[in-house]
Amino acid sequence: MSSTRRIVVVGGDAAGMTAASQARRMCSADEVEIVAFERGPRTSYAACGLPYLLEGLVGRPDDLIARSPQQFIERGIDVHVGHEVIALDTSERSVRVRDLASGSERSEGWDELILATGATGISPPLDGIDSDGVFQLRTLDDAAAIEARIADGARNAVVVGAGYIGLEVAEALCARGLSVTMLEMAESPMAGTLDADMAAKVTEAVEASGVDLRLGAAVTGFEQTGGHLSAVATAGASFPADIAVLGLGVRPNSRLAAEAGIEVGPTGGIVTDARMHTGTAGVWAGGDCVESTHRITGKPVVVALGTHANKHGRVIGTNLGGGSATFPGVIGTAITKFGDLEIARTGLGEAEAERVGMAVSVSTATSRTRAHYYPGGAPMTVKTVVRRSDGVLVGSQIVGGPGSGKRIDALAIAIWAGITVEDLSMADLSYAPPFSPVWDPVVFAAGVADTELRR
Amino acid sequence: MSSTRRIVVVGGDAAGMTAASQARRMCSADEVEIVAFERGPRTSYAACGLPYLLEGLVGRPDDLIARSPQQFIERGIDVHVGHEVIALDTSERSVRVRDLASGSERSEGWDELILATGATGISPPLDGIDSDGVFQLRTLDDAAAIEARIADGARNAVVVGAGYIGLEVAEALCARGLSVTMLEMAESPMAGTLDADMAAKVTEAVEASGVDLRLGAAVTGFEQTGGHLSAVATAGASFPADIAVLGLGVRPNSRLAAEAGIEVGPTGGIVTDARMHTGTAGVWAGGDCVESTHRITGKPVVVALGTHANKHGRVIGTNLGGGSATFPGVIGTAITKFGDLEIARTGLGEAEAERVGMAVSVSTATSRTRAHYYPGGAPMTVKTVVRRSDGVLVGSQIVGGPGSGKRIDALAIAIWAGITVEDLSMADLSYAPPFSPVWDPVVFAAGVADTELRR
Repeated sequence: MSSTRRIVVVGGDAAGMTAASQARRMCSADEVEIVAFERGPRTSYAACGLPYLLEGLVGRPDDLIARSPQQFIERGIDVHVGHEVIALDTSERSVRVRDLASGSERSEGWDELILATGATGISPPLDGIDSDGVFQLRTLDDAAAIEARIADGARNAVVVGAGYIGLEVAEALCARGLSVTMLEMAESPMAGTLDADMAAKVTEAVEASGVDLRLGAAVTGFEQTGGHLSAVATAGASFPADIAVLGLGVRPNSRLAAEAGIEVGPTGGIVTDARMHTGTAGVWAGGDCVESTHRITGKPVVVALGTHANKHGRVIGTNLGGGSATFPGVIGTAITKFGDLEIARTGLGEAEAERVGMAVSVSTATSRTRAHYYPGGAPMTVKTVVRRSDGVLVGSQIVGGPGSGKRIDALAIAIWAGITVEDLSMADLSYAPPFSPVWDPVVFAAGVADTELRR
Repeated sequence: MSSTRRIVVVGGDAAGMTAASQARRMCSADEVEIVAFERGPRTSYAACGLPYLLEGLVGRPDDLIARSPQQFIERGIDVHVGHEVIALDTSERSVRVRDLASGSERSEGWDELILATGATGISPPLDGIDSDGVFQLRTLDDAAAIEARIADGARNAVVVGAGYIGLEVAEALCARGLSVTMLEMAESPMAGTLDADMAAKVTEAVEASGVDLRLGAAVTGFEQTGGHLSAVATAGASFPADIAVLGLGVRPNSRLAAEAGIEVGPTGGIVTDARMHTGTAGVWAGGDCVESTHRITGKPVVVALGTHANKHGRVIGTNLGGGSATFPGVIGTAITKFGDLEIARTGLGEAEAERVGMAVSVSTATSRTRAHYYPGGAPMTVKTVVRRSDGVLVGSQIVGGPGSGKRIDALAIAIWAGITVEDLSMADLSYAPPFSPVWDPVVFAAGVADTELRR
């Protein structure tokens, strides 16, 4: 009998393979054997790069692959692609694995199990949603399929949903010369993450780009002609479409865990503690399939972002490797762009604060990315959401030109650390004409917020 | 007898005029009369924009003027340009003012006095330093004089000092087609603000630009031919020069205050409390002429930056206007660029930490501004300085390509708030491929720092 611990990883993407790599770095092969099963054909690739691949900005699909199965194997992680884990047994500590190529099944034992099963694009049960021509953009195969359709002469595209992925896909397809219609059920784009006043600037940019943005337009079905998608229907109209891409968000792949009796929260995400350990002995989970704690509301949320998945993986791997690490939660920071317009947010939006019953003071401040006299500057608007009870910044949103979006990080750290807008309004941020007006936009916004709070 | 309070402002630039404007916003003309004296011909202009004016990036010199004397007068601030305050009487509460055009002098009384006398470029007592052709770049007139010399066919320029201004001026003169030599006494550029390891990247960029950078080269004198500058001499060599620009830093203009018995610190800056009030009743001071408290060391420092001057002014104006405000100190945040290389710093450098006797753990982490597969990304290196006793981040420096410099703000807020690198290493910063690798460079650097700290 060997005393080697056996770690089994379910899912070969960011969270799972980061966990595996971290544990591998910390433990010798004698101490730990690591086996990973991935149902797809690839490991560790950047799904968030897919819109840019479609846009033609990424050289080759392979550029999105951070590390191949072979590279993991060379590092002592025994990766099996094309292998789907179809059941877990947490008392016997085994998984049931199906080799998708041969259809054969086998059981594999584990001492520690890492669930990193990811998320699946939401696909509502609408008429014709399975039509040939309706896509998600979640995998390299999805991208290749859309690419093939463009090569076949697709002219009209409908993007369903005006969230992050929807906007990125619309921009990409537009850049590829397709005529793009965007259908969004809500009355503004990015409705879940940007307040309506800030989203209005996104609407302007999308409309100016030539994308036909339809707000308040709920899709009712997908029409086919000869087995192929021909149009996307809403209550009011029908939009011709050779291809449709769904950008309706994702839901965690937590069924496998739930069936094995591992706790899944009301968010649909697997529940873990801060060490990323589930309620079941020896079972860890991370990435898009788990829920995280929102540091401001204290409530569980599912945020499917590679940056969290990587951190989850690091935490799991450290804990399995004999170290001690915790994931401190999220504050909902996110960023994207549409053309030259940069869009970023962190913390609570005004609408979110309302939903959780927090009394807030809200303001917006528009300035520029550079000194007014320095060339290449652009306007940027910073919205701030401040808790009335103590003046602490709890949320911020930025919409502006090139160079504005990443400034959300200064605001994110302010929220992370829990400082007041009064404190932030006098913070020593960097200033030089090519980088900022003399009142840095973040400091300026904090000053406006502080004034509004005292009003 | 009127009960109108009379505020006299000495110095019509950032600190003084911001203070005046803020007090004016808060008080009616019945409550407060505001009179400002400026010895130069202009008010409130962006001295930090002068290198870019010289470079040809700024349309017209007037673009650097934020607000003219006439505009201040229209807002109820009685500005007198070409008027130098030559003495203060703090017991009689008056200033002695000379009209530089007529030479006539008069006394003006005040209830409250704001000293915003700025700073002067350091001009060491070297042979020939007063030669025709040796310049500072502190005023629009300085810029015009250099401009005239370029128009007259100046070919060779020597920049003395490789700090912020020196680098900016060297870049500008190089862009204008001059042959530029840079003489720096220290063994690396930006020696006061960047650690040698980070400065080495600046050296590379400067050398690659065609500027002839000479380190360890102390200027011994300025040679003249026919009354004009002809060369700048060091111990080892002499460098032909039609123009020389001094970039040796500045010293606070605090003589007037000192002569009136107002406390001046060992830094040479006027001493104030956090409200920007000096030790003398009714006398306030702000901008480049005062010292500020460094929040980490607790020691007084003089940091001549428009961003601080504006904040000082806002604080003074708020306090004079009946409000209550304090300036919370500085952490030494600064940014500049040389060509495409962005250079930023905040908090304590490794060398500074050593000087104040703080035991620190130091590391550097190189990553990229964007996802590796997204076009337009550039390498960036983040150095972190961490206090050993508690793991709190106390300093950081960034040198990298376009899009790297302003990320110093996230680190500055982390220092401002006093969080640990462990905390920062899991912070929720924004991620999308056009803006960041999946491990944001700041978060990544904090992780590397945390690992180093535990080593």
